Amino acid sequence: MKIAIIGAGNVACHLAQALASAGHQVKAIYSRTEQNRTALANILPHAHAIDSLNLQELDIDLVIIAVPDKALAIVAVQLQVQPNAIVAHTSGSQPMAALQKVAGARTGVFYPLQTFSKSKPVDFKQVPLLLEAQDMQTLSELEELAQTISEQVQTVDSSTRKQLHIAAVFACNFTNHLLGISRQLLQEASLPPQLLQPLIQETVAKAAQQHPFTVQTGPAARNDSNVIEEHLHMLEQHPGYQLLYKELTKSIQEAQLNE
Amino acid sequence: MKIAIIGAGNVACHLAQALASAGHQVKAIYSRTEQNRTALANILPHAHAIDSLNLQELDIDLVIIAVPDKALAIVAVQLQVQPNAIVAHTSGSQPMAALQKVAGARTGVFYPLQTFSKSKPVDFKQVPLLLEAQDMQTLSELEELAQTISEQVQTVDSSTRKQLHIAAVFACNFTNHLLGISRQLLQEASLPPQLLQPLIQETVAKAAQQHPFTVQTGPAARNDSNVIEEHLHMLEQHPGYQLLYKELTKSIQEAQLNE
Repeated sequence: MKIAIIGAGNVACHLAQALASAGHQVKAIYSRTEQNRTALANILPHAHAIDSLNLQELDIDLVIIAVPDKALAIVAVQLQVQPNAIVAHTSGSQPMAALQKVAGARTGVFYPLQTFSKSKPVDFKQVPLLLEAQDMQTLSELEELAQTISEQVQTVDSSTRKQLHIAAVFACNFTNHLLGISRQLLQEASLPPQLLQPLIQETVAKAAQQHPFTVQTGPAARNDSNVIEEHLHMLEQHPGYQLLYKELTKSIQEAQLNE
Repeated sequence: MKIAIIGAGNVACHLAQALASAGHQVKAIYSRTEQNRTALANILPHAHAIDSLNLQELDIDLVIIAVPDKALAIVAVQLQVQPNAIVAHTSGSQPMAALQKVAGARTGVFYPLQTFSKSKPVDFKQVPLLLEAQDMQTLSELEELAQTISEQVQTVDSSTRKQLHIAAVFACNFTNHLLGISRQLLQEASLPPQLLQPLIQETVAKAAQQHPFTVQTGPAARNDSNVIEEHLHMLEQHPGYQLLYKELTKSIQEAQLNE
């Protein structure tokens, strides 16, 4: 497949490299920023940096849009492709319909469910790729491509992808914030952040094996009100964390009542 | 060292086995429940199950109390040991002073910072062992023992251990609850729980390398109010989770202001 990538951020970089490594021709990289599009095009064997969203003169089968959610609508309006090309976005929260303004294209979604950093390599084979397409033929072309770079390919419609996105916010964005609070509290006690790593690893490993509600431990689960009161008192310097402590404790206790 | 263990729960089992494997003589196991003390004593080479907390007739150098926090005060009152024996508890939240009622004993804390399940083996070498003792001599005896089973031995006083315990509640107990909410939301969307595993693994791996506040992603971090509003709307069936979503979003945005 001859592919163009719109965007040169974290998702675009990891995806373009995974596709190129699997032998696909990533022929064009668009980004508004010259430096970014050139940097990414330069590390791919067949790619040119392009500065226009009119791709009608290029021989492209698939355009993958990997831009921030906010920029997706603008790209969809400006993008011009050859008739029958596939245009897919990579967003967890945007519906496939966000691409309906791309004239003449077949539309789809090519959503890699992972958090990417430029500095950290990712084993793409293990990244779930969630696909959606306007028709079966388009879906099967996207599937064939997806399976060359990932072992975890699934079809998920826009509404289910949204529910998955909320679940990911709780499991990842919110979890990351709690890990940040924990790290700050360790720092304030002059304790090294590595100290909690074995416990964090084990917590996550256990949660992968069993429903976390059934293995919940700690003062909230034991309803250990002395310890809870003492912790709330110790958090007086951090009223925001104190409030989170209260609400999370309440939520743990409510979840146990429903077990 | 000749050791007695008070308790036969998860901590007691893992600790007793780690000590026995390192060649120490775990000579006695006390539990109120006959079945539990016998079961643990039977899998240790030199141990007897005992049904009294009067250990004065036994030749014991160290008594490790691994009972629930609530039971610690009762055990401390009833326990009788030979003069100069060391008595240490394994609690993260209780001060060393909880043992001051044990007549004639030297007191200490021997706190393994890990979450233990009976069914899941743990590599004790990687479990941080946090020690405290009433005097330097006792501390050095506990340290010598601790280093035979763990590579992560540290001295931490009661007040610092309490701060560590709050940090662990955020990083582990609360994180586990968020993973549980996430799993429930996946179930409600008929999605398999494994789908989010690569993302969870990467989130935790990244948080171990950098301060989580500096790598925060998601709708809250991007202040993506359309997505936040939509998520809150989708959570209307779960008012408790909706409230947590609001408070965690607010806390993420406040943390970013302070960066």
